[in-house]
Amino acid sequence: MGFTPRGFLGDKPAKAPPLFPFLLTFLLVGSRGDSNAMDNVSTERLAEESHRQDSANLLIFITLLTLTILTIWLFKHRRFRFLHETGLAMIYGVLVGVILRFGVHVPQNMSDVILGCAVNNSPATLLVNVSGRFYEYTLKGEVGRGKGHQVQDDEMLRKVTFDPEVFFNILLPPIIFHAGYSLKRRHFFRNIGSILAYAFVGTVISCFVIGLIMYGFVSFMKAVGQLGGDFFFTDCLFFGAIVSATDPVTVLAIFNELKVDVDLYALLFGESVLNDAVAIVLSSSIVAYQPAGDNSHSFEAMAMLKSFGVFLGVFSGSFALGVATGFMTFTKLRDFPLLETALFFLMSWSTFLLAEACGFTGVVAVLFCGITQAHYTFNNLSPDSQDRTKQLFELLNFLAENFIFSYMGLTLFSFQSHVFNPLFIFGAFLAVFLGRAANIYPLSFLLNLGRKNKIGSKFQHVMMFAGLRGAMTFALSIRDTATYARQMMFSTTLLIVFFTVWICGGGTTPMLSFMITVFFFRVGVDSDQDSPQNSAVLDGSQRRDTKHESAWPFRIWYNFDHNYLKPLLTHSGPPLTATLPTCCGPLARCLTSPQAYENEGRLFDDDSDSILNDATVSSMYADVTVSTDASGRTVNRSSGTRGLSDDCVDHDLALAEHEVAIRGTRLVLPVDDPVDAPRV
Amino acid sequence: MGFTPRGFLGDKPAKAPPLFPFLLTFLLVGSRGDSNAMDNVSTERLAEESHRQDSANLLIFITLLTLTILTIWLFKHRRFRFLHETGLAMIYGVLVGVILRFGVHVPQNMSDVILGCAVNNSPATLLVNVSGRFYEYTLKGEVGRGKGHQVQDDEMLRKVTFDPEVFFNILLPPIIFHAGYSLKRRHFFRNIGSILAYAFVGTVISCFVIGLIMYGFVSFMKAVGQLGGDFFFTDCLFFGAIVSATDPVTVLAIFNELKVDVDLYALLFGESVLNDAVAIVLSSSIVAYQPAGDNSHSFEAMAMLKSFGVFLGVFSGSFALGVATGFMTFTKLRDFPLLETALFFLMSWSTFLLAEACGFTGVVAVLFCGITQAHYTFNNLSPDSQDRTKQLFELLNFLAENFIFSYMGLTLFSFQSHVFNPLFIFGAFLAVFLGRAANIYPLSFLLNLGRKNKIGSKFQHVMMFAGLRGAMTFALSIRDTATYARQMMFSTTLLIVFFTVWICGGGTTPMLSFMITVFFFRVGVDSDQDSPQNSAVLDGSQRRDTKHESAWPFRIWYNFDHNYLKPLLTHSGPPLTATLPTCCGPLARCLTSPQAYENEGRLFDDDSDSILNDATVSSMYADVTVSTDASGRTVNRSSGTRGLSDDCVDHDLALAEHEVAIRGTRLVLPVDDPVDAPRV
Repeated sequence: MGFTPRGFLGDKPAKAPPLFPFLLTFLLVGSRGDSNAMDNVSTERLAEESHRQDSANLLIFITLLTLTILTIWLFKHRRFRFLHETGLAMIYGVLVGVILRFGVHVPQNMSDVILGCAVNNSPATLLVNVSGRFYEYTLKGEVGRGKGHQVQDDEMLRKVTFDPEVFFNILLPPIIFHAGYSLKRRHFFRNIGSILAYAFVGTVISCFVIGLIMYGFVSFMKAVGQLGGDFFFTDCLFFGAIVSATDPVTVLAIFNELKVDVDLYALLFGESVLNDAVAIVLSSSIVAYQPAGDNSHSFEAMAMLKSFGVFLGVFSGSFALGVATGFMTFTKLRDFPLLETALFFLMSWSTFLLAEACGFTGVVAVLFCGITQAHYTFNNLSPDSQDRTKQLFELLNFLAENFIFSYMGLTLFSFQSHVFNPLFIFGAFLAVFLGRAANIYPLSFLLNLGRKNKIGSKFQHVMMFAGLRGAMTFALSIRDTATYARQMMFSTTLLIVFFTVWICGGGTTPMLSFMITVFFFRVGVDSDQDSPQNSAVLDGSQRRDTKHESAWPFRIWYNFDHNYLKPLLTHSGPPLTATLPTCCGPLARCLTSPQAYENEGRLFDDDSDSILNDATVSSMYADVTVSTDASGRTVNRSSGTRGLSDDCVDHDLALAEHEVAIRGTRLVLPVDDPVDAPRV
Repeated sequence: MGFTPRGFLGDKPAKAPPLFPFLLTFLLVGSRGDSNAMDNVSTERLAEESHRQDSANLLIFITLLTLTILTIWLFKHRRFRFLHETGLAMIYGVLVGVILRFGVHVPQNMSDVILGCAVNNSPATLLVNVSGRFYEYTLKGEVGRGKGHQVQDDEMLRKVTFDPEVFFNILLPPIIFHAGYSLKRRHFFRNIGSILAYAFVGTVISCFVIGLIMYGFVSFMKAVGQLGGDFFFTDCLFFGAIVSATDPVTVLAIFNELKVDVDLYALLFGESVLNDAVAIVLSSSIVAYQPAGDNSHSFEAMAMLKSFGVFLGVFSGSFALGVATGFMTFTKLRDFPLLETALFFLMSWSTFLLAEACGFTGVVAVLFCGITQAHYTFNNLSPDSQDRTKQLFELLNFLAENFIFSYMGLTLFSFQSHVFNPLFIFGAFLAVFLGRAANIYPLSFLLNLGRKNKIGSKFQHVMMFAGLRGAMTFALSIRDTATYARQMMFSTTLLIVFFTVWICGGGTTPMLSFMITVFFFRVGVDSDQDSPQNSAVLDGSQRRDTKHESAWPFRIWYNFDHNYLKPLLTHSGPPLTATLPTCCGPLARCLTSPQAYENEGRLFDDDSDSILNDATVSSMYADVTVSTDASGRTVNRSSGTRGLSDDCVDHDLALAEHEVAIRGTRLVLPVDDPVDAPRV
């Protein structure tokens, strides 16, 4: 669209002798055009030719996606489940990459003019004065070179290479928004403490453990002369940050098949969603930490502190912005689903753009915008729009994700500057494994001290396995491939993604299903304690303890959210007139939506799991019967009219959601037929 | 995305002295960067700054769209209907344009390096060698100049200018596809003869009439010295082609309110959809006609013939390609709506890309792909996917259309090289009016000679009025604004679009509603003849004659389509085993989908109007009650078991659609409760 590339963070061209920047001498290096080809009509024809070529290249990707979809369908139809769809997309990408690399050779287009210029930077925009007319050229990116500093002349390979910013600005936002929008919010908020611990502390631990191990390896490689270029400690940390981002979507697909405790599932999914946000901000903080002027790359307390400040600032800024726009999307356009859906889509996109324009991280803002919109805005949408928005983002997510994974496969062969170093790769795999272990096990131990619903040791092993690296890791590593260090990182990251998606993503599902079948063990439920007060089970299925770690901050938040935010921002919940003190009567009447009164007597299952698109998952693996009972199904019939006691919040939030407050007296209504029974 | 601009068709730089193309001398004209700003970190910062600026610019458009949506909602809510939504989008665009033009002045970014180069063309791609690294720059477009050949230094205005190809490659395809996909096919195919006459003959007449009138005006202007540059006869014809494209969507919105005969409505809608395709191919043929080497621009029989050949070749190629991919989307993925929707979307997009890659016109291919998919593929989709695809394209269409119209408003002030010539503008308005008249009235007269359901004179006046110019005209005119002639065309076209959308689009609805109320006349129904055999009306509403011009070619096509194509390509229709001769038994069994047998006893209302998204329209103007009876509702109960007689086809196609063929004996079943009653 109107985007110019963001430029290459950390782009460090070899030092050139400083010249007068006012006098650049451009030399034509290798134009093969002759004077006939230079004339107007030929230019038109060449431009048209180039356009056709572009269309053909995009067609390659569309064909790849189509093939992937057809194969996924075949797999589902025949009930093969040994490979996840993203793995499939990768395989097709690799095949096309091999063909393009070794099969097709399109020589460079004649319309390209190669200019030599001895300056020490490349401007983002060139204005070229051609016979009195000014033409604007935008920087597309660095062109890969073959051996011996020759320009790579394979037009095809150069053309199928996308601007890395496409991933950040076009493909990642829908994926991340979808992850936020489809988060199982009830269970997410119930486990918010553990999730934040894993996401923040865990990711930072993982980043530093990986960074330190890699620094050890790199130092060793330098000592034995295996290193072909600079590799600083900050590069190691950067590598640690980018490979610490785990992929939520594969987790979703795999864990849906495991009859895993919903809380633990929410824990894992929430962690993998949030750690993407942490990793992206962490990596940009590390880039900001890199000393600007000199190349010392030594440890500096001040820079470290500044970097930490950047991290906090960017993260909280993005968070605040996402939540704020999520709040703002207070739509009253219920009568016009098309307008409503369009508005919803535009607000989500503008969150991204606003964050980018303010210098925050758009992807992080979009994540929190998605979570907020799922929590508040979703309730205001008409049922038609609820379906539409879910389906729209599901489709966008599906397309973007498969595109990224097939592109990933393609780059394995089409990328020009791969640096595969066996020692580095070995070190990276080891570091990733140890980093994940240093994240999961100690944190789980510490969290178990405080949690009532313990994280079982088997579940911890599963969390180890589920640390797939996906789209975010790829997008972060391809963003900058200018230096030797970054190229080596990119190549290694590709291998890590391939390995985790193919082995863990493809392997764990049947393996764990097998384990379930053979040992009859239910992952993570080994710490079950059925407490007496929770035994009022209405359906015949097993009821597990959902006692969780929610402490007083959570309870305060819940009360505040339920009594004030929900009524203010949505048409559901108790009217503000009932929850605010009587002295605020007029204000409350003014702020309460008229529909809130209408909904007053209605059981508005506004926080049900309906937002999680179970339909997708069940349609994906329609043959697997999911028999999990969620706590949302159970209702304490014995509770008549009573206050919103701590016990109630603590015991079952789902129950509290169904409370309808009428004139200050809270009445817990039994839910006989939940609108949307959670399935996982 | 990966697109490089297609280049500027007919881009004619002023003649420069031919230089050695091997030695280009680039001179830095006005870089304001100093040596500090040239260093690496500064470049990064500037690139980031530029990215922020881009985000902010996109945000302007998103805000515009959001404002438009909110105002549309307000209008609908308050039931104002004096202005169409596209008109609103334009007004907001104009306001922002005024603010950007006169309110904000952002000086040029320091990162831009201005290079002077004395060559006579601008290559599509520049490879710049910066200290041994090669950077690729792509041509973004010509930069507008202020007076006296100075580069326009308002960064803001330059940045909000989109690459014209964005309109062609990203925004137009969903609009045109939606138009094709939502075409009322039954009525469309019934009136195919008249529609093709209006679309092909009419558009060519309109193009040449406008071209000739404009040539007269331009010659006069040249004589009185009012012309500031070259303006050839081919330019006049080109202008005629681009302003001959009428906008289908405004027609849809307006005519839904008029209780107009469905056939006449289909006529008008079909014409406005198809003439877009004709206009686009016509304009590119005219560009191809322009003599390449010399600048004589005189009439040449050979070039004319070649141009006609190009027209036929490109049109039929695009048509064949669109229909072929429409056929190919023979999806059996009914169990997985997400996969199905994704596949449907990708196939439609790949049609566009394939056509562009083959040198055909993607937009035309997408139109016929949409029509074919609505006719065949739609029946194969699961109900869920039918909803999803309709809603998806509806949303894309809505966003793209409003974006184009608000951008249109913006360009009125942000475009740098406007040439407003009062005489030319007056001539253009006159020519457009006369061109439309020369299209509608004579053709209607000729068609009425053959039509049984005559096109009434009042309806002809309405067709005159309904010739709004919209997105296609704009996209065609902004595509190339390099020469003086094209700039004048663009400015004039903008005014024509504004006038027709604001006056005709905003004005006709209330005006015609008023006429309906006052004179109780039903547009276009003044030639009603109730024939005795059609009097079996089940519901109380009036029944109109639907005798139409469908002659033997249509009947043959219908039989072929119903008996062979539908069973082959969809799961509906009679099984091939029943329609093919017995000698082809094994082949028929092999080609028939198993579901066709299942559907055999079912009334598959596969060609109902459900594809036309009445929901949109009715939600748009929910206050207008549409009471039209369509012929599809009526059923001839007296017809028991009989063959598919000519009378049946001729009398009521809708009836024939409900026929179920069982073992060679055709049985006309009465339809008591049509699945989807047509509403318009």
